[in-house]
Amino acid sequence: MRAAIYRGAGHVTVEEVSDPLITAPTDAVVRVLRSCICGSDLWAYRGVIQRAVPSRLGHEFLGTVEAVGSEVRTLKPGDLVVAPFQWSDNTCPACRDGLQTSCVNGGTFGAPGTDGGQGEAVRVPQADGTLVAVPGGAESVSEAALRALLATTDVAATGLHGAVLAEVGEGATVGVIGDGAVGLCAVLGARAILGAERVLLFSRNPERQALGRRFGATDVIPERGEAAIATARDLTAGLGLRHIVEAVGTEASWEMALGMARDGGTIGAVGVPHTAPTLPLFPPFVHHLRIHVGVAPVRHYLPQLITRVLEGTYDAGPVFDLEMPLQDVALGYAAMSERRAIKVMLS
Amino acid sequence: MRAAIYRGAGHVTVEEVSDPLITAPTDAVVRVLRSCICGSDLWAYRGVIQRAVPSRLGHEFLGTVEAVGSEVRTLKPGDLVVAPFQWSDNTCPACRDGLQTSCVNGGTFGAPGTDGGQGEAVRVPQADGTLVAVPGGAESVSEAALRALLATTDVAATGLHGAVLAEVGEGATVGVIGDGAVGLCAVLGARAILGAERVLLFSRNPERQALGRRFGATDVIPERGEAAIATARDLTAGLGLRHIVEAVGTEASWEMALGMARDGGTIGAVGVPHTAPTLPLFPPFVHHLRIHVGVAPVRHYLPQLITRVLEGTYDAGPVFDLEMPLQDVALGYAAMSERRAIKVMLS
Repeated sequence: MRAAIYRGAGHVTVEEVSDPLITAPTDAVVRVLRSCICGSDLWAYRGVIQRAVPSRLGHEFLGTVEAVGSEVRTLKPGDLVVAPFQWSDNTCPACRDGLQTSCVNGGTFGAPGTDGGQGEAVRVPQADGTLVAVPGGAESVSEAALRALLATTDVAATGLHGAVLAEVGEGATVGVIGDGAVGLCAVLGARAILGAERVLLFSRNPERQALGRRFGATDVIPERGEAAIATARDLTAGLGLRHIVEAVGTEASWEMALGMARDGGTIGAVGVPHTAPTLPLFPPFVHHLRIHVGVAPVRHYLPQLITRVLEGTYDAGPVFDLEMPLQDVALGYAAMSERRAIKVMLS
Repeated sequence: MRAAIYRGAGHVTVEEVSDPLITAPTDAVVRVLRSCICGSDLWAYRGVIQRAVPSRLGHEFLGTVEAVGSEVRTLKPGDLVVAPFQWSDNTCPACRDGLQTSCVNGGTFGAPGTDGGQGEAVRVPQADGTLVAVPGGAESVSEAALRALLATTDVAATGLHGAVLAEVGEGATVGVIGDGAVGLCAVLGARAILGAERVLLFSRNPERQALGRRFGATDVIPERGEAAIATARDLTAGLGLRHIVEAVGTEASWEMALGMARDGGTIGAVGVPHTAPTLPLFPPFVHHLRIHVGVAPVRHYLPQLITRVLEGTYDAGPVFDLEMPLQDVALGYAAMSERRAIKVMLS
């Protein structure tokens, strides 16, 4: 089969690799129907972080079960399944706490020695605890629903998780820092699922502004840094925001978050802090801030998100604004890295 | 009148100063019955932070109202009142959120231009929003109750706040890092008020260990650093603690807190981060931590703490293990700085 391979910064290829096989009785093999490129894939692509060369790429996919190990109970060949970006047993203490990204038997697709989502098939460890079958199967799912389901494998759930970490509830006013797919999905999650009344999205990119509005942003603010902080305060009688989603992970985005938080407010952060390794403690201390951070436990959110997608009440599919076959994946990386696309779907 | 004066690192005197006067219609003047020395007073005493020279000292006191301004409604001369370490109007948005230490009209006793608690009398701004009268007055309060009330001006409420920030509830298992008065009061607050079932106190000082046990610590752990983390994990089936109070504010104490937190756990921090100005973000991110920090809004807790003291169900008074007249305050600073006393009461 073919799969995307990382050959170094800026260098992604598609190569012939071995077909995946069941190697543990809890495995499944999934034939990929759709996969995509993640903002976090760009860290290595841009050379910001190290990644093994060569290594398989991608951690977002959905597909059809092709084979299952002898201990797999909840899945059978032919099932349409959605995979979270990490596998998990869904039974350990962390999983029972809803923190499947801390699973003691967990791991990330695309990590050394594992299959990546950007390929024709994937061996999925801990299949019962990882994959969620879509009721009705592939035949009953429209192309639009398939896109919406694909978004739930990472960005839709991660954005929602940011809003959950930010303690967004009914009627809340929320600031979202980051207009990538995760930030846009935080807008959608805050509005469509958590009942936020007002969402301030910080973005100066016309396409992202438009999608932010479509996802429910009530205020789109093009300023950055101190100017953005001033605008957020102007819009909240000088008090600042009780709820902030930090969906970037840079020093600049954290400064914005800290600067526009209301005293006693909550910052929910899902941006991987590659370039903001430390947080100043005095500003949070003086302003009574609640800092909630974490790698989104997508598996925790998948069942409810799948239900909402099938009901037609939740659709993060429009984050995919560029589509191409797996063979052209290198073009997709370039487009996302150059911010010509929000998110690329591979089919 | 006489008051304690900061004359530089390691140098505290008692000097004659002007009697306090009502200068705003919202002021009260309070004759001090008891005051005390705070761990945070030691930062300047030890030369770790700068403080104006000369300046008045102390922010913890209770006493009798001597005079009130024309707009003061809830207090009258003769009332026994407890003061939180900061004044507040108790009506602004932050105060209504229970964050009186973010009051727009607030300030700290002992700051430049204000009176300190370590003196014979204090001008209290925003008296209605700051002082809480003790029902029954001075005549009905025992010496023991007076000590317990004095503790509520800062350490008792700050320790409780740490446990509240750590989201301690009924049946919780809690780790308390810091065996100063605040840490010990966090033990008491977690057990006596919030219903924690198990409290691990990290202390190697026999007197503090004993008081920690008296306040309800179920496990007293003398190890520090990596050894303390290992012990905390051993005691929790390897999982770590869901609730941690960080009551020191150093890099070492934060490392302990991060190291012994259970994935998804909450760290409530009330130690002023003078020597730990930044927090590494990756460990909290990987372990889904909730970091809650802040300057305790003592005024928020005072009414309930005073009620509990008068009912006899809550007594942090034993934190005072050394007592002396105001005249000897310099000896008190030395004793606390050298850790020969947990907390010094001045009378």
